[in-house]
Amino acid sequence: MTHTVNQIADALGAKVEGDGTLEVTGVSEPASAGPNDLALAMSPKFAESLPQGAAQVAALWDGADWQALGLKAAVFVPRPRYALSGLTQLMDPGPEIAPGIHPTAVVDPSAQIGKGAAVGPFVVIGARVRIGKTARIASHVSIAEDAVIGDDALLMNGARIGSRVTIGDRFIAQPGAVVGSDGLSFVTPEKSNVERVRETMGQASEIAEQSWTRIHSLGAVEIGDDVELGANACIDKGTIRSTRVGNGTKIDNLVHVAHNVVIGNDCLFAAGVGIAGSTTLGDRVVLGGHVGVVDNISIGSDVVAGGGTKILSSVPAGRAVMGNPAVKMEQNIEIYKGLRRLPRLFKQVAELQKAVSKTAKSD
Amino acid sequence: MTHTVNQIADALGAKVEGDGTLEVTGVSEPASAGPNDLALAMSPKFAESLPQGAAQVAALWDGADWQALGLKAAVFVPRPRYALSGLTQLMDPGPEIAPGIHPTAVVDPSAQIGKGAAVGPFVVIGARVRIGKTARIASHVSIAEDAVIGDDALLMNGARIGSRVTIGDRFIAQPGAVVGSDGLSFVTPEKSNVERVRETMGQASEIAEQSWTRIHSLGAVEIGDDVELGANACIDKGTIRSTRVGNGTKIDNLVHVAHNVVIGNDCLFAAGVGIAGSTTLGDRVVLGGHVGVVDNISIGSDVVAGGGTKILSSVPAGRAVMGNPAVKMEQNIEIYKGLRRLPRLFKQVAELQKAVSKTAKSD
Amino acid sequence: MTHTVNQIADALGAKVEGDGTLEVTGVSEPASAGPNDLALAMSPKFAESLPQGAAQVAALWDGADWQALGLKAAVFVPRPRYALSGLTQLMDPGPEIAPGIHPTAVVDPSAQIGKGAAVGPFVVIGARVRIGKTARIASHVSIAEDAVIGDDALLMNGARIGSRVTIGDRFIAQPGAVVGSDGLSFVTPEKSNVERVRETMGQASEIAEQSWTRIHSLGAVEIGDDVELGANACIDKGTIRSTRVGNGTKIDNLVHVAHNVVIGNDCLFAAGVGIAGSTTLGDRVVLGGHVGVVDNISIGSDVVAGGGTKILSSVPAGRAVMGNPAVKMEQNIEIYKGLRRLPRLFKQVAELQKAVSKTAKSD
Repeated sequence: MTHTVNQIADALGAKVEGDGTLEVTGVSEPASAGPNDLALAMSPKFAESLPQGAAQVAALWDGADWQALGLKAAVFVPRPRYALSGLTQLMDPGPEIAPGIHPTAVVDPSAQIGKGAAVGPFVVIGARVRIGKTARIASHVSIAEDAVIGDDALLMNGARIGSRVTIGDRFIAQPGAVVGSDGLSFVTPEKSNVERVRETMGQASEIAEQSWTRIHSLGAVEIGDDVELGANACIDKGTIRSTRVGNGTKIDNLVHVAHNVVIGNDCLFAAGVGIAGSTTLGDRVVLGGHVGVVDNISIGSDVVAGGGTKILSSVPAGRAVMGNPAVKMEQNIEIYKGLRRLPRLFKQVAELQKAVSKTAKSD
Repeated sequence: MTHTVNQIADALGAKVEGDGTLEVTGVSEPASAGPNDLALAMSPKFAESLPQGAAQVAALWDGADWQALGLKAAVFVPRPRYALSGLTQLMDPGPEIAPGIHPTAVVDPSAQIGKGAAVGPFVVIGARVRIGKTARIASHVSIAEDAVIGDDALLMNGARIGSRVTIGDRFIAQPGAVVGSDGLSFVTPEKSNVERVRETMGQASEIAEQSWTRIHSLGAVEIGDDVELGANACIDKGTIRSTRVGNGTKIDNLVHVAHNVVIGNDCLFAAGVGIAGSTTLGDRVVLGGHVGVVDNISIGSDVVAGGGTKILSSVPAGRAVMGNPAVKMEQNIEIYKGLRRLPRLFKQVAELQKAVSKTAKSD
Repeated sequence: MTHTVNQIADALGAKVEGDGTLEVTGVSEPASAGPNDLALAMSPKFAESLPQGAAQVAALWDGADWQALGLKAAVFVPRPRYALSGLTQLMDPGPEIAPGIHPTAVVDPSAQIGKGAAVGPFVVIGARVRIGKTARIASHVSIAEDAVIGDDALLMNGARIGSRVTIGDRFIAQPGAVVGSDGLSFVTPEKSNVERVRETMGQASEIAEQSWTRIHSLGAVEIGDDVELGANACIDKGTIRSTRVGNGTKIDNLVHVAHNVVIGNDCLFAAGVGIAGSTTLGDRVVLGGHVGVVDNISIGSDVVAGGGTKILSSVPAGRAVMGNPAVKMEQNIEIYKGLRRLPRLFKQVAELQKAVSKTAKSD
């Protein structure tokens, strides 16, 4: 991927100083940059290690003195992390999947695959599947009967798309991601022990032997545009209607989305998040790593939950929460301050008891 | 899947009113039901949205006035959630896997596959494997040497069955599920830092460099009848004897069961549960999402643990637990009430200190 | 796998008594041992159940009276758990993968595979891949373009190695493990709601609609020698430089290692651990099951974290931590003792308030 400095700046809408015709072939941290790399030195701290590398060109912060830094050219970016997005997109070669359909792939004759597809070895595409244009489908992917996928999909190795799943444009699935597994939905002929515990908060009396009868997943999964799903993440089918994920939502590795869950637009779930059955989440909800959300509750738009939070009841829109169980972030910080002072509090109360008992006696 | 209303009612052991000869092709929520769908309106709340859809037939609660709801026929079900199980089983078309063994499948000549099997593309079945009758094995599944699987198995795409694993009848594995990975079992030549911390609860003094030597997994996994395993869930082999899962146990997506664990019958583990090595669980244990259970402890039958609970010590039979670390559910609720009142308690004690000190001075 | 007792003792550097020429074909717990099994009875407690089995040979503790236990021969091991490592390695047949490259495998002509490889069915190996000698690669594995793997690799079924990943010698990947998925790295054009919450600890005011722009992963993953990766575990690529895992580090099932993380040597992470982006861990760090570590912090060498711990800030070397959020293990135990006594404390303070108020009135 060779680009001139001018081409890079054009792509980023950024300003160039120095020799814009220089060519770069990669992007690097300053200390490890080779002579053909664009060094990322978008703050003075990072620029300090430029001399350890061999960069001739760097991305710098507004107002940096590129000549004093010994460079031949520089690109000036206003919001560095945002610039990184354009830069990395430009320099990413993408996965090598040969154009066309690999001879080993098993594609049902009734499946429709749009123009410009690259389908790798050992891919299996089922009956009546419809896939949009310029799909990139890596080896070992399976797409089951009646699934519909939009344009520009990127399905990495071993991703699994279940039957009847519908997905919008620009979908990305990392390796091993599963869309459309059956929900874990079971019922007992009589009221189960769990139902009793939920009603009484803890009294699991009158336990009877019981076994689980399966509720099949007749629903599917409906996913909007611009959704990404991480490695080995799973989204279950709904029971009657579909499990739903809105446009622009990004889901990290090893996340679990249970049956009937409804997720809004532009949410971001970090790795290991689990959302239990039939819960509804609004737009722009951000859940940190290992956040758990119980079933049948409602999380408003713009909720932010810190890593490790366990959300056991509904959360109104716009609230930042933390802890197990989740409380408002400020309240959680108060509670933990309190916890650390607990041993001292016990001492203080013991002393007070002594003092008061003495006063009482001396009365 | 076309069924008459009478056929559906027969399958459910339910009562019909109206025209039982009407045919339905799907099941739907009331608002989105088409004219050939059976609408699920098993409580008055759900029945309210019947007019938004086009259903002619519905499943209703006992005593509902089907004619007033504008229907042509109705099925009356006593325990709605349980009826859902029969209904969804009836209407589930199941995965499309062509009968017979797909020509691309690689099946060892010494493997025995029972009558009526459907084996999909790119399936690999190893030496001396034995599989019962009417197995459905989707694409990309691998079954390693000497594994034994009972009748009516359903292995979804990319499921992995390890060597020497034995599984009973009616086993279901969702996509990417792994049975029979090696246990994470390592030992250091000298006593390790972790062993020292466990002995002293926190004193990690005298740290020495150490590396890990592998303990291989010679055991296998033994799974009973009617077990289901979720997408990307993992069950490790035992070290010497097998890891065991009893009959009727249902395990959700992304669950981890470590080496040497013994799980009883009819347990239910929600997504993201992790059970560490050599722990034993009784029958009908229900673990909520993200529950963790440490190694080498014992969980009695009928224990119920709420979502996000971390169980750090053995739990007697019949107890409902919650929290990190797990305590009795009622106690956990008391503790959390206390936590929210902590800031006020600190104020009260400070006031008491002032009052007592004043009293003391005034004495 | 037939070995004489003498061969086993030689391999373990252990002492034999009795008939060292006896042959054993397996290893077993005492109660279930057959006549050709070596029974593991390395403590008096385990030896008690020898009569329930049919063992003629056992591994015993130093000083045990093998003749009184009715055995024909015994192997004496000083550190039993360590001996288990040698024993299980000796008796492990390993996975059956036929030598050579299976005819169904798709190997790019530019790939180099070292001598003595066993490559199973439906394996895909991309352009310019280099793999060392005696690799064992089970069915359905994919290794993407430009990946480099050292000698003696064992890649189990369906493992995924991404492009540009480099791995040392003796690497083991359990089924479904993913190395080199893209990092979940997204940015908003304007400051995001999450950035505001982080700055203000909870004030998510001025919420604006925003969508996520992707930062591509140009870095790779660099893994040292003697690393093992569990089933369905995931390691993401770095953004600019590589995500790194040191020599001898062992990672269990369903673990997530995010982009840019740096992990030292000889660490051990139990199942379900998640490490967020750009965090650095030293050597010999041991993380229990379900431990979470937030992004951009530093964990010193020899840190030990108990199961379920959520680490929200940097931890100095040598510290043992526990809890959510993580605190020193001793402090965590103090806090939980306090929590259980909280209800009593509330009562005591209420009584003190009454007593003091009475004293004040009586003044």
